[in-house]
Amino acid sequence: MNPFTDQREFQVGHFGERRLIQEMTKWLSDCTPPPPEGIGDDAAVLTTPSKQLAITKDALVYRKHFDEQAPAELAGAKLINRNISDLAAMGAVPSHAVIACLLPPNTSIPWLSQFYSGINQTAKSHNLSIVGGDITSTFNDLAFTLTLLGSIPVRPLTRKSAHPGDTVWVTGHLGGSILGKHLHFKPRLEEGLWLASKTEVTSAMDISDGLATDLLNLCPEDCKIEVQTETIPISEAVENYGDDRSIDHALTDGEDYELLFTLDAKTDQLAFLARWRAEFSIPISCVGAVRSRDKDDESRITYLGESTDFSPKGYEHF
Amino acid sequence: MNPFTDQREFQVGHFGERRLIQEMTKWLSDCTPPPPEGIGDDAAVLTTPSKQLAITKDALVYRKHFDEQAPAELAGAKLINRNISDLAAMGAVPSHAVIACLLPPNTSIPWLSQFYSGINQTAKSHNLSIVGGDITSTFNDLAFTLTLLGSIPVRPLTRKSAHPGDTVWVTGHLGGSILGKHLHFKPRLEEGLWLASKTEVTSAMDISDGLATDLLNLCPEDCKIEVQTETIPISEAVENYGDDRSIDHALTDGEDYELLFTLDAKTDQLAFLARWRAEFSIPISCVGAVRSRDKDDESRITYLGESTDFSPKGYEHF
Repeated sequence: MNPFTDQREFQVGHFGERRLIQEMTKWLSDCTPPPPEGIGDDAAVLTTPSKQLAITKDALVYRKHFDEQAPAELAGAKLINRNISDLAAMGAVPSHAVIACLLPPNTSIPWLSQFYSGINQTAKSHNLSIVGGDITSTFNDLAFTLTLLGSIPVRPLTRKSAHPGDTVWVTGHLGGSILGKHLHFKPRLEEGLWLASKTEVTSAMDISDGLATDLLNLCPEDCKIEVQTETIPISEAVENYGDDRSIDHALTDGEDYELLFTLDAKTDQLAFLARWRAEFSIPISCVGAVRSRDKDDESRITYLGESTDFSPKGYEHF
Repeated sequence: MNPFTDQREFQVGHFGERRLIQEMTKWLSDCTPPPPEGIGDDAAVLTTPSKQLAITKDALVYRKHFDEQAPAELAGAKLINRNISDLAAMGAVPSHAVIACLLPPNTSIPWLSQFYSGINQTAKSHNLSIVGGDITSTFNDLAFTLTLLGSIPVRPLTRKSAHPGDTVWVTGHLGGSILGKHLHFKPRLEEGLWLASKTEVTSAMDISDGLATDLLNLCPEDCKIEVQTETIPISEAVENYGDDRSIDHALTDGEDYELLFTLDAKTDQLAFLARWRAEFSIPISCVGAVRSRDKDDESRITYLGESTDFSPKGYEHF
């Protein structure tokens, strides 16, 4: 669906800000409380859901994260879900969100209405309140930024907190997200919470820039990670590319929105796997291990196995 | 200062995301804690500063809210200050912020560094932590969105909570902000907190879209507001326009970042004024009163006095 229209009466520039806020508040009727808790005052008032909170912020830009091929509802859902994925990786539960809309004047009201319908449904399904936002006109780019706040019921799952000997795991399958999953993924929220409750989990993050890049983000400064390439779980979608670069895709496509985590070296891996399987249907795979790093180790990520003929380069935003 | 550069080695697109985040973290060294409390994990962990929080979100767009004439530091300071103004109007104290950067690939690193220097200094002066953010490339527009979180030490100051008979007040002077003040204002933070501690204050908001529009946003649904035009405090800057539309400017220029509030009908106004003056050097002015609204009242804002020959139309973002 085209986010823009030439018909003046359906353009946000014709509606004006005041009416647009009224419409948006209606579109969010299932997930926004009345002011001052919701939209309509200088700021929203919220009662803190827990002593420790997690806060994250992510943007969604037209022609970067979605295009006119994407149903507007799915683009709206994606704005929420990609932020939820960040909280999931932190062991947090989403509670409140604020949205900034950066809109060219010819942005289509019907498109925006469906985009917000996707936001509304997704927020409702997570019991998440959209408590405020901001609308600003731009000259060219259509973009949204969302700030998501959540409670931390157990403990925060951090990056870079693994130790030598810890094993490295991923949920689900990687690669080929652009062929569909990037609009249809389910953030690993329950899985993240479950991992936070297990003391043997030493670190975690979500895979959004591709495993190759995100392993670098997970790896503690004084460590390296050895990856067994044949153990990387490759998405079925990757086969649709019809090339022979499966591992490349799994390592670098990005937007997987799976969890990457480490288990303490002393963990009984088979017992852990059994406990996981009793809870969840998606698989987890051990893809490598954390090692201590020598001064002369050039690379922080080492790829071992038969198929190491690839050039891992994660998604770069520029 | 020009936010863009043709010199490839100074462009954000040349730096890449990872290096840019490293640089930004350095630029914010006075106001960002180490992860997981600050920048560097999937989300930032924060310990709630009070049981009740206020959250607000505002954007800053190049050629809308600042241009190449503006020193980059002042543009950065403005991003923080316009959000602080919203919290001030809520009776809240800023504590944590996250920033989203929407950057065309040719955005200049030297410009960005100075922009962040303005953010750093302003945040530091308010003891505000910048705990995270997001960087995304755009095609054309340069924009930033900031989400600001604060504690509410006394009570939230809401809009639309005045009653018939209440008097309407403004801080400072209005109009002509574009001639300089919009880059140099001091958000009325202490004033907002002080107002929240006074039970006779029945409602409050900040004036960002111009008094004419913001009176509509303050006015309860079943009320109207009568404004005495000759009592509107007009900024000295307005004289620089050299036209005879002073009241028009004071009512509609926007970006005043002053406070608009109401006092309970029973308040001893002279005594209140004396208590204000004992605390603050900026003036406050009574500009009108809240009245009950008859069904046949067409307009919710009535302008009385000698100079009512103007066409109040507040700032519209589209």
